[in-house]
Amino acid sequence: MVELSRLGSARATGVGEILQLLRDGTPRTRSEIMEITGLSRSTVSARVDTLVGLGLVGPAGEAASSGGRPPARIAFLPSSRIVLAIDLGATHGTVGVTNLAGTLLDHTTAQLDIAAGPEAVLDWATETGRELLRASGRPAGDLIGVGVGVPGPVEHSTGRPVNPPIMPGWDRFDIPARLGRAFDVPVLVDNDVNILALGEHATAWPDADDLVFVKVSTGIGAGVVAGGTLQRGAQGSAGDLGHVHVPWHPGSTRPADDDRDLESIASGPAIAALLRDRGVDAHASADVVALVRHGNREALDLVREAGREIGAVLASIVNLLNPSVIVVGGSISRAGEQLIAGVRETVYRRSIPLATQHLSIVQSRSDETAGVTGAAIMVIQAVLDTADAWDLVPSSTITTTSPTGGQR
Amino acid sequence: MVELSRLGSARATGVGEILQLLRDGTPRTRSEIMEITGLSRSTVSARVDTLVGLGLVGPAGEAASSGGRPPARIAFLPSSRIVLAIDLGATHGTVGVTNLAGTLLDHTTAQLDIAAGPEAVLDWATETGRELLRASGRPAGDLIGVGVGVPGPVEHSTGRPVNPPIMPGWDRFDIPARLGRAFDVPVLVDNDVNILALGEHATAWPDADDLVFVKVSTGIGAGVVAGGTLQRGAQGSAGDLGHVHVPWHPGSTRPADDDRDLESIASGPAIAALLRDRGVDAHASADVVALVRHGNREALDLVREAGREIGAVLASIVNLLNPSVIVVGGSISRAGEQLIAGVRETVYRRSIPLATQHLSIVQSRSDETAGVTGAAIMVIQAVLDTADAWDLVPSSTITTTSPTGGQR
Repeated sequence: MVELSRLGSARATGVGEILQLLRDGTPRTRSEIMEITGLSRSTVSARVDTLVGLGLVGPAGEAASSGGRPPARIAFLPSSRIVLAIDLGATHGTVGVTNLAGTLLDHTTAQLDIAAGPEAVLDWATETGRELLRASGRPAGDLIGVGVGVPGPVEHSTGRPVNPPIMPGWDRFDIPARLGRAFDVPVLVDNDVNILALGEHATAWPDADDLVFVKVSTGIGAGVVAGGTLQRGAQGSAGDLGHVHVPWHPGSTRPADDDRDLESIASGPAIAALLRDRGVDAHASADVVALVRHGNREALDLVREAGREIGAVLASIVNLLNPSVIVVGGSISRAGEQLIAGVRETVYRRSIPLATQHLSIVQSRSDETAGVTGAAIMVIQAVLDTADAWDLVPSSTITTTSPTGGQR
Repeated sequence: MVELSRLGSARATGVGEILQLLRDGTPRTRSEIMEITGLSRSTVSARVDTLVGLGLVGPAGEAASSGGRPPARIAFLPSSRIVLAIDLGATHGTVGVTNLAGTLLDHTTAQLDIAAGPEAVLDWATETGRELLRASGRPAGDLIGVGVGVPGPVEHSTGRPVNPPIMPGWDRFDIPARLGRAFDVPVLVDNDVNILALGEHATAWPDADDLVFVKVSTGIGAGVVAGGTLQRGAQGSAGDLGHVHVPWHPGSTRPADDDRDLESIASGPAIAALLRDRGVDAHASADVVALVRHGNREALDLVREAGREIGAVLASIVNLLNPSVIVVGGSISRAGEQLIAGVRETVYRRSIPLATQHLSIVQSRSDETAGVTGAAIMVIQAVLDTADAWDLVPSSTITTTSPTGGQR
């Protein structure tokens, strides 16, 4: 199995700086790279040659010349490598292949039961991944990593789920070891909400340094981007919005003394329970979504109230972290405008004006492939941000690259 | 005035990487620097020469040799430059001089009234700073920057206070322009709580990547370090714990329907008001501190209850950010163990086990000079982390450096 720890701890040196510079898509001449990085001509030359040899960058047209032979421009080649991304939910799984820009090239979705346990589920994911890689026609050496999202808490540094409530049999299961044996590349694992936050941040809000993504469905969780970086906290448990304690308060429709956490007040199942109290037949998030879509008055009201309760917790977070964007996702948010309207109501009422004057509270743009896109972006960021990780790329890939370094 | 914006936005290139490497105090040979940075021999040589020329690094004994002349080790010289730090409170001001390790070399404290306005207060700070610099015997070129902490919200990017409640006349006052005219170096300004968080993080918890500092005195505020970086948020208002809304709850001693923010429940003046309700003569934080120190039962109980209320808000933050350390500071925390005992009570009860199992909740180690130390560290981090900032150091300093680059 490939040593995962090297990905996280390696110092960004060598080719990394140049790769980072080129990742924005702007083609550059060697002189421009020298000027921007301050590296010497010989260092730039050697490193660009290494990157060309790896096939990660290649010639991209010519720059305007001051006379003589025009200097060649070099550009990042996002199609030079691929990523395998696995998004596991409670009742579904999606496996996809992306390029280094996170663009989804192919994917397969299936119904599955996460409670069937890691062996069965990862067998399916491995087999599906192998099929997609075969269908892509790409050599094995083109795969730089596997990203996995799971519906429960994960110790990101080891890739193991930790006491995941809806994943029986998965506690501390070594997902990277299992998938590393199958694919022989680094494997990164995180919870589904962090994965969605990464994807939403990278694709929809790349310039927002401070963003909070909230998922409201069977559970409630958040992914926190602060200072441009997804924050996982000291033990990787950051973003646990669902277990924030919400005391009973006079504005609430709950009975007094009914102290609970946010998930048991405002999640899909919690709303369904409140609907049953009112004689409406509802058991899961899907029932709530269906009722909202059919305009059921009780469901509309209760989803909005859930949004207010979530907004009250987010208001504290707005004061604490001063994000510029709050993105609300998950099945309950996709049912309609009620949830986000409730969120906006309390956030704008309860947060300080300086923190809300430029705050956007928006619905997630993500669809059912957002999970695989986010999982791929986790891998791309980890691998491209960490230059030494390129030592991990099997050396055979170098020989399969065409001498011109062109896109294959 | 020196362009402040260059400090924040300059790309870390050139000498910065080597300076960062040497800042941990470990002397290194040129070969070690080449190996760690991946830079070429000629680049390392040129950059080390630049740093020696600037007097920031110098020879530091010799490394064990494999034969022949032993290679020279190079070390960071923290005494090569100085920082002027100004800590302004509601009723006091401290001005200090530190070296590049943040060690306080000299300081002066005086009673002052922040409400006297920026002209009077900054005149005093300028005059006091000039006296300290004169007394230090250091040439003007040795000063690399001025750091300022003020008791109110600041737009960090411009260094201007924004609607500071206890600083009449200071709203949007251009502190960097005023002090830049006097000292001709970059001037960085932040609120007192961020300054204390930076100082506490750098001096007491340098290895904690996720730390929350809470100050409880006349107001309540937090400084949030996430992923190793002080988080200021999109508009610089992050850390506003005092305005987090705390609904009435059954466990509270407040009358029902008494909705308020945390500051009006648990700050020094709020505790004093509750004491007056109980017939105890108390008006300000200082009175509460005195009563606690004399063992007044009502004061002890109310401070502990304030700690519980603060802990309830911190519990949400623990779930959200999973810090490894919460540091509680400010005058009310220094009065005794009651505040932190109350904080611990609710944080450990209400946060998820994964987030609290390795969480330390500790009292601040800071004393009355913590503000100037933190303000100096803000400047040191900004200047040393940003290599291009060295273009800002007046070139005259190069000629005043001794040829051996030794510590002056």
